Amino acid sequence: MMKNFKLTIEYDGSAYHGWQRQSIEPTIQGEIEKALMTMTGQSITLIGSGRTDAGVHAHGQAASFICDTSLSPEVFKRGLNSLLPQDIVITACAAVPETFNARHNARSKVYHYRILNRRLPAAIGRQYAWHVYRPLDLEAMHRALRHIIGRHDFKAFEGAGSPRAHTTRRVIHADLVEKDEGNLIFEIEGDGFLKFMVRNIVGTLVDVGLAKITADDFKRILLSKDRKLASVTAPAHGLFLTQVTY
Amino acid sequence: MMKNFKLTIEYDGSAYHGWQRQSIEPTIQGEIEKALMTMTGQSITLIGSGRTDAGVHAHGQAASFICDTSLSPEVFKRGLNSLLPQDIVITACAAVPETFNARHNARSKVYHYRILNRRLPAAIGRQYAWHVYRPLDLEAMHRALRHIIGRHDFKAFEGAGSPRAHTTRRVIHADLVEKDEGNLIFEIEGDGFLKFMVRNIVGTLVDVGLAKITADDFKRILLSKDRKLASVTAPAHGLFLTQVTY
Repeated sequence: MMKNFKLTIEYDGSAYHGWQRQSIEPTIQGEIEKALMTMTGQSITLIGSGRTDAGVHAHGQAASFICDTSLSPEVFKRGLNSLLPQDIVITACAAVPETFNARHNARSKVYHYRILNRRLPAAIGRQYAWHVYRPLDLEAMHRALRHIIGRHDFKAFEGAGSPRAHTTRRVIHADLVEKDEGNLIFEIEGDGFLKFMVRNIVGTLVDVGLAKITADDFKRILLSKDRKLASVTAPAHGLFLTQVTY
Repeated sequence: MMKNFKLTIEYDGSAYHGWQRQSIEPTIQGEIEKALMTMTGQSITLIGSGRTDAGVHAHGQAASFICDTSLSPEVFKRGLNSLLPQDIVITACAAVPETFNARHNARSKVYHYRILNRRLPAAIGRQYAWHVYRPLDLEAMHRALRHIIGRHDFKAFEGAGSPRAHTTRRVIHADLVEKDEGNLIFEIEGDGFLKFMVRNIVGTLVDVGLAKITADDFKRILLSKDRKLASVTAPAHGLFLTQVTY
């Protein structure tokens, strides 16, 4: 009997070449599809809500797959977790209507980007935050990030190499919070994201925080639609796909 | 000019065969001594407050070394951090009197042991906590851990292979706190610790939490001085040497 399942997935992206299946390098999609093959004997295509880049983590990636099976969601969850490496955990598995598609039905995504802003780097947890050792002006960063909220053409923050025809996206929420001394989290929710968009926004925001550019410059860069004006891409290991809403 | 320096060190022990220098395998002491050799051209012996086992982490290990140098503590701190791998960070370097010895002068040590107590394992941060998936009875664990506070012969919790003549130690403080849902931290401060002592206490405490043994059994195990009665050693990756006081 054909069934459709939705997975919620937590992963530490450190050891992976991103979400998308590749022939040689290990990927999140590849590992889960391999485990699904072991469980079902079927070659199953796992549809992610979207790709994450090499080194990016997820607390709440979502994916769906259709399978001819009598197994229950609970059995899939336990079976996959026993087969998957420790850095990939299925946190939920649910039966969903056959029309559900984790990519097409995603309404919004929440990303977190973690910055450790203090003089000294961290040895413990260094793989989960970007260490920026010069003090950041959080006020200036707040003034800048207001400009991305709403519907905008984010072409200036799109990564090179995979231009989309439509580069307009809606940012529903964006904020920068200091969880505790020096531990910053940039939160952003949007109806969709361009390649490297969050990391390019963070890289440019950090330049505002370092007073290399002003909050007004940040706005000008956004309006320019010119990638060459934005700052360097923030490193992958600070980025977490936190939630996908449907 | 001969000077004595005290280092405070944070490390992620995942990739190391413990603190103590070995001829082939990488160790924390070995890495820091190598960096000291690069900086000074001298073969320097680094005296740790004590060893940590393979895979154990530290937020605040302490060590001292004597060196013929004109370099300042600040220069050592910056130089070592630029030479050391990312999973070892010198968080402080101070000039100390020539009589100071990080091992002999240590008055007490604080260890934290982290347990993730929930059904699902964590992918992110899995290298920093022991995952115990069955629910723990924290009340029972609290009743048990009271028995270790004070001066006791901890022979029952000593690891095999390196028996000490004197196995009496004083536990100044011990507590189990739930930081947030399912994230437990066992804190223990003592004037000294036997090999595997914290991990053997934690392994036995967890058996109390799982109702395999009672809090009274825990007390009897302590009084028995018989290692064979204690439970399995808790895994290394949940343990952190948090502070050494002088």
